[in-house]
This record gives sequence, C-alpha cells and structure tokens, in this order.
Amino acid sequence: MPLIATPQTMHFATPLPLAGGGQLADYHLTYETYGTLNAARDNAVLICHALNASHHVAGEYAGKAKSAGWWANMVGGGLPVDTNRFFVIGINNPGSCFGSTGPMHINPATGRAWGSDFPVLTVEDWVNAQARLLDELGIEQLAAVMGGSLGGMQALSWTLQYPQRVRHAAVIASAPNLSTENIAFNEVARRAIVTDPDFCGGHFYDYGLVPKRGLRIARMLGHITYLSDDVMARKFGRELRHPVTGRAGGYRYSTQDAEFQIESYLRHQGEKFSEYFDANTYLLITRALDYFDPAGRFDGDLRAALAAAQARFLLVSFTTDWRFAPARSREIVKALLENRRDVTYAEIDAPSGHDAFLLGDERYLAVVRAWFARIECSGEQEKGAAA
Amino acid sequence: MPLIATPQTMHFATPLPLAGGGQLADYHLTYETYGTLNAARDNAVLICHALNASHHVAGEYAGKAKSAGWWANMVGGGLPVDTNRFFVIGINNPGSCFGSTGPMHINPATGRAWGSDFPVLTVEDWVNAQARLLDELGIEQLAAVMGGSLGGMQALSWTLQYPQRVRHAAVIASAPNLSTENIAFNEVARRAIVTDPDFCGGHFYDYGLVPKRGLRIARMLGHITYLSDDVMARKFGRELRHPVTGRAGGYRYSTQDAEFQIESYLRHQGEKFSEYFDANTYLLITRALDYFDPAGRFDGDLRAALAAAQARFLLVSFTTDWRFAPARSREIVKALLENRRDVTYAEIDAPSGHDAFLLGDERYLAVVRAWFARIECSGEQEKGAAA
Repeated sequence: MPLIATPQTMHFATPLPLAGGGQLADYHLTYETYGTLNAARDNAVLICHALNASHHVAGEYAGKAKSAGWWANMVGGGLPVDTNRFFVIGINNPGSCFGSTGPMHINPATGRAWGSDFPVLTVEDWVNAQARLLDELGIEQLAAVMGGSLGGMQALSWTLQYPQRVRHAAVIASAPNLSTENIAFNEVARRAIVTDPDFCGGHFYDYGLVPKRGLRIARMLGHITYLSDDVMARKFGRELRHPVTGRAGGYRYSTQDAEFQIESYLRHQGEKFSEYFDANTYLLITRALDYFDPAGRFDGDLRAALAAAQARFLLVSFTTDWRFAPARSREIVKALLENRRDVTYAEIDAPSGHDAFLLGDERYLAVVRAWFARIECSGEQEKGAAA
Repeated sequence: MPLIATPQTMHFATPLPLAGGGQLADYHLTYETYGTLNAARDNAVLICHALNASHHVAGEYAGKAKSAGWWANMVGGGLPVDTNRFFVIGINNPGSCFGSTGPMHINPATGRAWGSDFPVLTVEDWVNAQARLLDELGIEQLAAVMGGSLGGMQALSWTLQYPQRVRHAAVIASAPNLSTENIAFNEVARRAIVTDPDFCGGHFYDYGLVPKRGLRIARMLGHITYLSDDVMARKFGRELRHPVTGRAGGYRYSTQDAEFQIESYLRHQGEKFSEYFDANTYLLITRALDYFDPAGRFDGDLRAALAAAQARFLLVSFTTDWRFAPARSREIVKALLENRRDVTYAEIDAPSGHDAFLLGDERYLAVVRAWFARIECSGEQEKGAAA
C-alpha cells in the first residue's frame, strides 16, 4: 500500500526574527508528516530540503499520478528512513515557492506581492522556523535531522543552534560553506534572472510576467553543476539530435538550433523549471547557500565552530560530485572527529555527480539504512527483537 | 626596443568553400607579422587565436599605451618564439570581431550587416583561410604552427589538412574535441545571448542595439571555466566587498548587490567584455569549438584520425585546467605516439586553470623555448654557432 501524503499548513502569528535584522511577520509553513509520533515523542525525524524541493518528501498524493515525494526512495515504510519506526516531517522553508510564505504571497505592509522585498533568510533562520513548527507539534527533541546539499547544511546547523534538540544528524553531499566557484556559479544564475527584463526589479507578479529567460539559464547552468562530466559523457556524449546525411560531421551548421542531444536536454530542463519555479525564490535560496558558513564566526576554524554539536553524525559524499566534492564532507568529518564526536562517513563511488544523493545507489541506501537502524527510540525493545 | 605591430588587411575575391556547404564570398583577413621572412621562406610561424583574441599576437601599437599583443610574453625578440629567428604571423579568423570579415560587416547579398546570416565556419574552414593567406605571402611551408585552446585545435587541424605544409605543431591547453560538459557550458552562454531581447534574432546592428545582458552572462560563465577552483579560492575566497559591521557574518543580506569580491570581479569582467565583443561572433566561435572533432570521421578513432599528421609535435597541458584537462592532451599524445610521431609533452603543475596558457609560468615558457630552439631554418648554421 503506497504511503499517502497530505500537506498541512500551520500559521505563525509571532514574528520570526531574522539573522539579517528585521523579522518575518505573520507567516505560514507547509509541511507533511509520515508515520506516527510515539508516546515518548522521541521518534521524530526532520527532513530538510535543498534548492528545488519542498515539504513533499515521501509518499504520493491520493489519486494523483507521478506525485511521488522527492526522497520517496529514501523515506517510507521499510525504506532506509523507515516510517514504520519514525515519525518523519518534511517542511517547506519560508521564501520557497511550494506552499510556505514566500515572495509570491501578499506583503501585509503593502498589500501587494512581496517580490524582491521579501527578506533574505539564512539557513539559521530556516532552522529557527523549523524549530517553532516542532514546538507546535510537541516535539522537544528530534531522533534525527537529515538533508542533502543545502538540506545537509540545515541538518548541520541544527546541531549547532539546538544541540540538545537533535540526537542524530545525517549530512549528505553537503559542505561547511560554499567555495568561491560555487558562489560564482550562483551569481551568474542570479544575474541571468535579475537582468531579464521580465524580472521587473523583482515585482513581475504585479505585471503578470515571469522572467522565464533568466530562470531557464539559471536552471541549465545549475543542471551542469548537479551532474558529473562522466555521467554527461555517458548519457549524451557528442550525440547529435538529428544528424544531417551528406553534411560534414552530420552537423546542421546552426548556432541556434539544438544540434547536440545535451543541448536539447538542457533546454528541456530549463523550460520545465521556468514553468514552476519562482525567480525570487531562486535568488533567496542561492543567497542562503552563499551565506552559510558556521566557521565564519570562528575565524574560519571549523573545529571550533562545530564544538557545540552533540549529535551523532552520518556524512555521505559521492566521488563524482564536483559541486560539493568529498573533500568538503571530509572537512566536516575531520572537524567533528577533532571534537571527539561520533561520526560515520561513507564516500560512495557513484558516477552521477551531486544528483547522486537523490538517486538509489544501493550502497548509499544501505549505509543510511544501517545508520538509522542503530537509532534507538522509546518502546522499541520488544519490536526490535521481533523484527 | 619594443616590437611595433602594424595590422594589415588582405582581400580575397575568390570565395572560400565551407565545410557546412556554401561559401564565404569576397572577404578580407586582418593579420600582423613580426620578424623577417628568410630567403628560403622556411622560417614562418603561424599563431592561431582562441575565442577572445585576434591577429594582434605580439608587440604593441605605436604610441598606444597598454596595447601589447595577447601572447606578448611568448612571441617577440629573444622570447620563446623568437622573432629574431622566425617570421611570425597572427591572423584574425573570419567570423571574429577584430578586423577580418565578420557578422558585423555588410553582407553583399543584402546590403545590410550579416548578423546571424553569417555562415557558420569550422576550424577546418579557418585553416583553409589561413592557408590562402600564406599562399599570398609566398609561404609554402610553415616552420611551425602554434595555438592554445581553440588555437591548439587549429594547429592540430593544420597537420591533418596540410601535412606537407607544416614541419612542427605546438598544441597548448587543447583537446581533440569538446566534452559533453564543454558543449553544455557553450550552450548556456549561447542561450543567454540569443534570448536577450536586444539580440533581435541576430540583427541587432540594424536597430543600434547590443545584447549586453547576454554577453555579460556568457563571459561571466566562460570566466569561471577559464579559472581553477583553486585560483579563485586563493584570489577571492569568501571575501566580502563591503562587510557591514554589526550584521551577522558582515553580510548586507541582499540578493542583488555584489556581496562577495568574486561577484564584483565577474560582473566587471562581464561588463568589459560586453562593451567590445560581438554577440554573433560568440555564437560562431563557440560552435566552431563544438564542431571540431577530427576523430569523428573515423568512428571516434583518434589514432586513425591523426595518421595523416607528419609534423613534430609539442603538447602542453596544465594540471588545474578543468576546461581542457591534461587527460585531453594525453589523448592526443597517445594517438600521435601510436602513429610513431615525434612528440614532446609537458604537463605543467600550474594553479591558474585554463588561463595558464596565456600566463608566464617559467617552466612552461622554458619548454616552449627549448622546443622552438630545436627547429631548424635555412641559413642559420653560422648564426647558431655564434649565438
């Protein structure tokens, strides 16, 4: 029987104070839960999302085809994050475009869409918002927090902001901060969006416009950084879309037609993305990525920055991930070990680049499964023996 | 005494047949020469340019400050490519925007600027155009052909198209073809240009417009691929432009301001580039890069493709070049050795990424110097002994 997901919304009347000064007043969060909170309320697992994802982590929507959650191969009954044992929570972060309060919603101060006036939120702000939702759900301590990429940054930040509230943290395909090159790619994507005339200074909603040109470029570029050179070569190589017989190389000799399969693929990805993703959300989330840097307040000393963490950790990286390369995960592992924390680290030899964290590599899933199996929750002794 | 460069123009009334079908009729080439052609006419060295360069390889323009050629550290009196020995020629390729016939010039068939109607030229077409210029200069055989990046592809192609006309070939920081990822980056840059409303389907000249937004994005992106992650981290790190005291992290918390130094640097590079580079030229040259693939006609067998080459080769790659990584140069070296060709190969441990081929690493310059010193030209026996 498939897991049926039901999005819920919670309203917060108390303003959320923000790292950048100011506050987010009167906001709502969209979330989903899977499984059952136990009597001791100590079996909750929070899943944090990355750039292009939402609260819809697992299961599917009743009667809706192709509506599986973005981590449906990871979270569910009998899966590595087992919803028969854990009460799993997915939350859409504020500023995102999948339900929680974001730049496309009405700014109560002006009566029109927030647009580019939406406050810049940080990873730390998101974690605070998530913590408040847990307060409302009556969850004092998480069995685990887990995320990949930007989601991994949130998981890491949880262990620093609320060390007593999280027993375990799984930080997948992540990094202690963005490299200069990571920031550079983000900036190119942002400039493509901001300089699209249809962006209208971030208030395109008021004009019924969407800066699709910019969003397409941002997504095409992002997509290259999610894949590995290897996997692109294997999937597409130099294959042509429609080779022309009788022409040297089979080429059409056009600068604007999609000549190679990879061009067609990227255009398709860009087009799809531009039809559902919000331009201001793209700016906000890439900035949250840029800004995350827990070692920043410790003169770059990551060991000192992570001294506050109390959780047991799982870190996973993927060999062909050049966005957040294994070396970045190893920085976190090293800093945690220097603090004598309990760390499990797996470096998976997967060909799929950064995207591997969303895919079903068996060794990866097995590592996560084994690590979660060791997490103890109340009232499970008997069940564990029976299983 | 500095070398003074003087650009010259040669007109060609005979149409140039093109790989893609059709021809380029009634065109001119801009070129420069340095040094003196010897009596035997066998000391000529042709330098081929890459995407953003021209015929202005060496020396400087009389009375013009900051007008040094793009390879002025490599080519000149007493330099690795010594203009006291060699007659060096720089040619601007047709389709470029630095003097030779290009998309900004008048299409005789329509009386208006070529724009996007300019024919798509290949590396092979450029080599044919260069060979015709050598015919006019009375140079039957080159002592050497040399280029970096896309220029290296032209040097390699010379040895295949005109094996009898080139005694030596220096192929620097180049590749036997573009990888899928290389093509993907080119495509993102092209889409940024083509979808800029000011591109006007490639006929922006007619409207007095320039698609600067697209050119800026293309250049920012290109720039990231020319540098290495390392050199960017070393030069810019996560340094802020104007840290705000009293704010967490010193951030301004803005999605549109240039917060990090790397953002400011990339924007500056994009801005400069958009002020002088032609949008159609960008499309044409990136397509020539995409299309180059000498092994393509041999079912991907590079050994078979390079069997025609007779020249002695120098290949140089740079360890941190991820655009054209050392592995790509090694493919060429391997295929040449399998054909029992004379190959010198140097892999330079330089931090600067692809850009390293334009910079003055001493070991790199020494390798090129030594390799050129071994090239024999007529009437030099006595001089050689005296030197």
